[in-house]
Amino acid sequence: MTALSFLPPIESTHNATLQVRLQHRIDTKTKPLGALGQLETLALQLGLIQRSETISFDSPQMVVFAADHGIAAEGVSAFPQAVTVQMVGNMLSGGAAINVFARQHGFALHVVDAGVAAEFEDHPQLIKHKIAMGTRNSCTGPAMSMAQAEQALQAGKTVMRGLPGNVVAFGEMGIGNTSAAALLLARLTGLPLSDVVGRGTGLDDTQLAHKQAILARALTQHADVKDTLPVLAALGGFEIAMMSGAMLQAASERRVVLVDGFIAGTAALVACALAPHARDYLVFCHRSAETGHRLLLAHLQATPLLDLEMRLGEGTGALLAWPLLQSAALFLAEMASFESAGVSGKN
Amino acid sequence: MTALSFLPPIESTHNATLQVRLQHRIDTKTKPLGALGQLETLALQLGLIQRSETISFDSPQMVVFAADHGIAAEGVSAFPQAVTVQMVGNMLSGGAAINVFARQHGFALHVVDAGVAAEFEDHPQLIKHKIAMGTRNSCTGPAMSMAQAEQALQAGKTVMRGLPGNVVAFGEMGIGNTSAAALLLARLTGLPLSDVVGRGTGLDDTQLAHKQAILARALTQHADVKDTLPVLAALGGFEIAMMSGAMLQAASERRVVLVDGFIAGTAALVACALAPHARDYLVFCHRSAETGHRLLLAHLQATPLLDLEMRLGEGTGALLAWPLLQSAALFLAEMASFESAGVSGKN
Repeated sequence: MTALSFLPPIESTHNATLQVRLQHRIDTKTKPLGALGQLETLALQLGLIQRSETISFDSPQMVVFAADHGIAAEGVSAFPQAVTVQMVGNMLSGGAAINVFARQHGFALHVVDAGVAAEFEDHPQLIKHKIAMGTRNSCTGPAMSMAQAEQALQAGKTVMRGLPGNVVAFGEMGIGNTSAAALLLARLTGLPLSDVVGRGTGLDDTQLAHKQAILARALTQHADVKDTLPVLAALGGFEIAMMSGAMLQAASERRVVLVDGFIAGTAALVACALAPHARDYLVFCHRSAETGHRLLLAHLQATPLLDLEMRLGEGTGALLAWPLLQSAALFLAEMASFESAGVSGKN
Repeated sequence: MTALSFLPPIESTHNATLQVRLQHRIDTKTKPLGALGQLETLALQLGLIQRSETISFDSPQMVVFAADHGIAAEGVSAFPQAVTVQMVGNMLSGGAAINVFARQHGFALHVVDAGVAAEFEDHPQLIKHKIAMGTRNSCTGPAMSMAQAEQALQAGKTVMRGLPGNVVAFGEMGIGNTSAAALLLARLTGLPLSDVVGRGTGLDDTQLAHKQAILARALTQHADVKDTLPVLAALGGFEIAMMSGAMLQAASERRVVLVDGFIAGTAALVACALAPHARDYLVFCHRSAETGHRLLLAHLQATPLLDLEMRLGEGTGALLAWPLLQSAALFLAEMASFESAGVSGKN
């Protein structure tokens, strides 16, 4: 696709020789075969990403992409649109959940204004890439133009290039963005809308039925749009598109990519549709309580690390899972082998 | 029960006033109601344990109870019995998985010889409370005498009293101990043996069928034994009994108790059977891949924090979950409220 020629090249992490070496290293540690479960799979993935039998992390980055959504005007969220800008302010003041967990785990935190419907003062943690003051309402037309979609992907690439380190976690803030995510998921995977629409920040049954009706209208409005980039433009959000671009850039630089919940998962879905090798770099950190996320993860053949019935977004699930990546690196580096410890093997 | 008069008194953590205050504090944080899922339930539990609206942790302790099992002679484990003493040595040398995670998370680690079938040199991290050189084979008689069961519970109490801090994680090492745990679980809950017997450290289908047949013999041997303490004596292990005693003492001191997987979960089951209020202090950290653990957790109405398909024991699942307890404490302390951050509430 010539339209995507601006996207960075991404290598597969496949490396049969290294994989055998890593698996041998994992299997000879003093534990029953496979007994560290997903931590072992994770160690293997991380080693392959880093092309090394030892895993090291450097300057971990947390990036929160924020934007507003035209479809919010249809009353699809339990919270008013103003909450997007207010929560960005809360993050820049250090009071949001993501700030707490970023401090806990030593992540540098940046918030990217991808398209919030308000202007911000400069702030050292704010990165400005506003595409527009929110998307348009996808019930009545495309959420963004094709040019804006490309601009958002490009901006994501730029954001990523400007940040150091070899591990990056992605999160988001945007009132209405579970609607955009559900629309993208339904169209890109063919899953029925009824399976992927959830309560977002807390809709009751009547409000949920309303949301489903609105999203069905949006899908009908864009019934003929099938390719990834036009679908992203028609139904997506600026924060989702920009996050996809940043994920692709991160993968092209062989960074470890921590994917948060439903919205970030949808950005990952878009990224993998645009460049399938991106999948190799993604660590799916938690399963959101939001309907549809389970199906999204299944579609991407992803087993998340955590399942804590959370549905907050911001990247919180990604950072809560972070110590497990450190544990994977540490057991690989520090555990004794059966031989070195003089421990007997199986009968 | 006069036999249990030596057990420490344990208070319920129930406190309606504090519970309302904690829930209000949780609910006014800048997030949709309930959006931090299990982290919110955890914050409430921790606040109630500590009788405070702020949670603080001090000198966290990891204690691994090790012992051998007479029933191992029946060939119920994939590994030879010598691995118990070898793995204790590995832990004292710092090379086991539990050492790696204890260093990662700043837990002091002690190994308790509750009844390993070998003598150990003194070591600063080794606590000696050997009841005997392993239990007897429960297929042919009680695993331990009633006096030994009481002695093990008492020793657990003593171990706990000797350690500082307000949070303690429990793990174990003992070839054959999934057999003892399955027997205790079956007898104390009435669950059928076929539902609770698993592959332990890695049995194949034939070996699993053999294990089931052996355990069925042990249950038949002690068909008339029903009360908790006699069941513990007839079917249990020294490390399980001692861990139960230590859990009860920890609860009596209002410590936060981190429970690892299947074996530690069985010790928790015994502790709760002896003193139901102990349940309030237990944080179930992970769901083991070992068959039966899911049922054990359901019996205790526990939702574990992690489910990583692990089956290693040692306390590894408890320590991997630890950062989530810190996250619960931190969000409660540091997140802004809707009011303080000037964020709008729901429509």
